[in-house]
Parts: sequence; C-alpha cells; structure tokens
Amino acid sequence: MADMENIIAVDIGGTHMRVAMYAPGEHAPLFHERIRSHAPNETVFDRLTSLIVNVWRQGGGAQAIGVSSPGPLDPHTGMILAPPNIKEWRDFPLAEQLTKRFKVPVFLDNDANLAGLAEWKLGAGRGHRNALYLTISTGVGGGVIIEDRLLQGHHGLAAELGHMIVDSRPDAPLCGCGFRGHLEAFSSGTGIERYAAEQLAAGRVSALTGRPSAREIEQAAHAGDGLARAAYARAGDYLGLGVANYLHIFNPSVVILGGGVSLSGALLLEPFEESLRKHVFHPRYLDGLEIRQAELGDDAGLLGALILARARVEN
Amino acid sequence: MADMENIIAVDIGGTHMRVAMYAPGEHAPLFHERIRSHAPNETVFDRLTSLIVNVWRQGGGAQAIGVSSPGPLDPHTGMILAPPNIKEWRDFPLAEQLTKRFKVPVFLDNDANLAGLAEWKLGAGRGHRNALYLTISTGVGGGVIIEDRLLQGHHGLAAELGHMIVDSRPDAPLCGCGFRGHLEAFSSGTGIERYAAEQLAAGRVSALTGRPSAREIEQAAHAGDGLARAAYARAGDYLGLGVANYLHIFNPSVVILGGGVSLSGALLLEPFEESLRKHVFHPRYLDGLEIRQAELGDDAGLLGALILARARVEN
Repeated sequence: MADMENIIAVDIGGTHMRVAMYAPGEHAPLFHERIRSHAPNETVFDRLTSLIVNVWRQGGGAQAIGVSSPGPLDPHTGMILAPPNIKEWRDFPLAEQLTKRFKVPVFLDNDANLAGLAEWKLGAGRGHRNALYLTISTGVGGGVIIEDRLLQGHHGLAAELGHMIVDSRPDAPLCGCGFRGHLEAFSSGTGIERYAAEQLAAGRVSALTGRPSAREIEQAAHAGDGLARAAYARAGDYLGLGVANYLHIFNPSVVILGGGVSLSGALLLEPFEESLRKHVFHPRYLDGLEIRQAELGDDAGLLGALILARARVEN
Repeated sequence: MADMENIIAVDIGGTHMRVAMYAPGEHAPLFHERIRSHAPNETVFDRLTSLIVNVWRQGGGAQAIGVSSPGPLDPHTGMILAPPNIKEWRDFPLAEQLTKRFKVPVFLDNDANLAGLAEWKLGAGRGHRNALYLTISTGVGGGVIIEDRLLQGHHGLAAELGHMIVDSRPDAPLCGCGFRGHLEAFSSGTGIERYAAEQLAAGRVSALTGRPSAREIEQAAHAGDGLARAAYARAGDYLGLGVANYLHIFNPSVVILGGGVSLSGALLLEPFEESLRKHVFHPRYLDGLEIRQAELGDDAGLLGALILARARVEN
C-alpha cells in the first residue's frame, strides 16, 4: 500500500543502524529494519541507503526522512561533523546525499537531542513544557526542551550536557572527547570503568580485577564490593552536581535519565539524589520537580527522528 | 500630556531604585527619577510607590508597569523570593501589591535576565537570535536568549549562570550565596577581592595591603602589581572556562559581557579569551562567535523592564 504521507525515521549508531516507516499520526512502525553499521568492502552510506530502499519499497515511499545520528553535527545544514564511531563521515553532507538519492526532504539532529525530544513528547516528559534529558551510557549526552521547543543553538551544537567542566584542576579525569574534568569523565560508564581500573592499579582491595566493564562493576556492587559501590557512588555524586548546575541554568519541571548506566538503580540514583539536594542553591528549584527514568528505551532515537521530520513537514 | 499607552519601567537595586516613563515605541524616557532604596522609618515598598506616583503624575498615567529586581524571584507569580539586599522583601508579592495600588498589569523579572533581554534587543546583541549575556560585578548574573525568546524556566528561576559549580573540591572558594565552587566565587568582583585578601594574608608580596576593593586591585594591576594582575587573570581564566561550558550548552552566536568588572579591559579579557579557546571542545562553537562588551550600561535594567512590559501588553 503506497502512502506518500508516510515518514521514514533513521537511527544511526556506532554499531547498528535502524530504519522504520511510520504512517500518519502513528508511533508504532509499519516496517522496521536493523543492520550493523559497518561491514567489509561497503561504505556506511551504501549500507544505510540499501536499508532505506528496503523500507521505502515495502511502504511505497515516504514524504520525508528524519535522521538521528551521533554528533557533533549541524542540523541546519544536515552536515555530520566528526562522529566518533564512523570515521568516514567526517564533514559528511548526509542530509544532502540522502535528498539527492531519495528526492524527499531530510531532517537531521543528534541522537541525544532527538531522544530528549521523543521522551518529552511521547515518554517520561509528557505534559511538561521545560524538560531536561540526560542519557548516561558510554558517554553522557543531553537534550533540552524549553517551552515546548528543542534547544538547538546557532549552529545546532547546543545541549552537549556531558561536556560541562565540573572539575577545573589541571589533573582532572580525562573525558572521551580528550578534554579534562567534564561531567562525562565522572558519570559515564567509561568514567566508572576508568575510576575502578585506576583504583585497582593503585592496589585497592576488591573482588574486581584488571579492567572490569561497567556491567561487571555493577554486578560486583550488587554483591557488596566496596570499590564497585564507590565507583557508582562517585558517578552518582557528580551526576547530582551536574544536574544541580542544569537546574540553576534551565529550571526544568522534569529531569529524565536514560541510557544503560541509568538502569543500575539505587547504586547510582541514591548518591545522585543526595548530591542533587546538597548542591541546589535554592529549594524552589526542587519544588514540584519530577525525576524520572526514560520510558522509550532503544526506540527514543527513531521516535525523535520521526517527531522532528513530522514537525518540519507540517510547518 | 496624558497618554494611557505609556509604560512605566522600574529598576530596583540594592542601593538605588529608578523609575522611568516611556511613550509608545520610544526607548528614551519621557521622565526619569532615581532615589536610594533604603531610608530610615520608611519601607522600601513605600519609597518605591511614592517614586512611581511622581512619574505617573508627570506622565498622566500608564497602561502597564515593568519591573527589574534582584532575584531570586518568580516572574510567573510576581513574587520576590529572597533578595540579598532588601531583607523585608522575603516572599513579597511585589507585582500583586503594585497592581493593587496602580490598577494596571505589572510584569516582573530578575535584573540579569532583563539586562540580557535589553542588550539583545537594543544593545550589543542586536540581530542575533541566540545570545548569552553575563554581568560581572559584585556577583555574576546571566540572561539567555534562545531563538528570540528569553529563557525563564518552569518557575522563572532559569539562567542563574553565576551559580554553576566549576570547582567540585570540598574546599573550593565560597560563593556569595553560601555554596562553594561557583563561577561567581572566582570571577566576580567579590571573588577577586577575596583571592587578593587571602594571598595577602598568606604573606604574598604586593603593593596592596589589607582587604583591597576590586577597583583598588584593578588600579594596582594597571600599575604592574603581580598579585593584582594574578587576581584578575584568575577571574578571567575561570570566566573563560565558564563561558566554554555555556557555549557547549547553548551554542549562542554572541556572548555579551556587562557589569563593572567587565570594564577592566585586557586585565580580565585577555586571560578570558585564552581560557575560552583552551576549553572549547570543538572549534565550530567559535565559528562566527562574537564576543562583545555590553552597550546599555546602567540603563539595561530599565530598558529590559520596558521591553518585557511592552511585549506582554501587546500579546
């Protein structure tokens, strides 16, 4: 059945890409495909277009394509700037290339912004007008809704909430981006792993050995290991400090926590909430504030890309 | 001459209050009065209403009153929460009280937000759609314009840009608000004074003695005093770090620096710009970015109150 009012949503990750087709007004996809991003002797762009062609043919076409991609990228020009896990897309005009291939408008934003948009519109932030979304996994990303609009900024580079310096010492922990003292360096899965590895190397006693993963550290923490618990507590403590900063900056009515590390429960969330309360400089920031777990899981990127494209073709 | 389309703008400071009346479309006041905020045997509110009555009579009335006041305050309810220099206004319903007295709508926001609004509309931020304003004086305040709208937040408490933790050590410098490690603790006039006093108390050699004021430190720095120069360089260094954080968060196209300390020139601005460049984690945040001195001086609060009230009565 051909319906040219359909929208195709694309979610590009460092390991997998997903493409789905949505009928007008629907949030459950008509068709849905998923493949690995990389394969020998094939470019990521060729793999992506083949996947879109599959979905396009099944649905009989679409009126627009929305794309969620790792940043940094420029949503105004549709240019991917420097994605950490897709080296061949440095300064790559993704929106232009897809428009040339499929002859429909293509709308692009970064994965964290779009996950925040989706959680606000369809997930844990429904009904709020000012929402702060943080995804805590390998890195820390953010998306901010201000009076029902996604914060994008002049070049569309806004809301890099993981890259706020919260420790200004010259020997502060290294962030994945190469700079020091960022929130991500403390509160991401990578930050948790690095801290545990450093403590182990320094001879701290623990059931853990070598360079344990965030998941292994979480399991050891649940089993009562002191170092493992301290690693999560430190991540939660800095997360609370960072969110206090963001409350002072944005004064949202809901904070939504997503990403794999946010699922570790009280290990992270108890120190987080204690630290948040300790660092907020006026109690009114906490008045009526909801702190919620993200609801959309892995679909947040696809749904955000759908919402973005739908909003743009309707304007 | 009576003109009920006039607007009265009020700027309340810890030491002085100003009231001005503006004709439709004008940014130069018809009448303008200024008095000290405090006097024996008189409340601040009574002094304020007398001043408004004076201006009101000269101009034959007004259709609305806009008010700039020190925060924290709630612009949605018109309530002053806890102004540091007007103790009698703790949880004071200023907008309601003024409406009761003058029978016209009263619109309120904090001084830094309104100065930012005025600089964006009439001053150094003209023509930009995403502007970051920082005022650096006794404290550090901020105002943010995102796609032509003032950032206010759920309770109107947004953009407390001076109260971002940039130093998470337990012994980080104290901020005027009583918390530690805030940008204001490093980059405000008070932060500069505190650092100089501590260094002098620790025996550092300098032309300065005792507890010098920010102005005295500035003069000594211009005369080449090492400690005085270091105090301003440290303030500029942290200001650059803080603004880098705000570029990652908001990605504005203009940064506007206002307030007395920002007038100290290269002493502050050279270390600021060096630090900003050092801490920005992707060069595209600096692409086309303008860094400008505020243009409206002491009139920014009045003009911001005027713009706020005018925008509200026109909607």
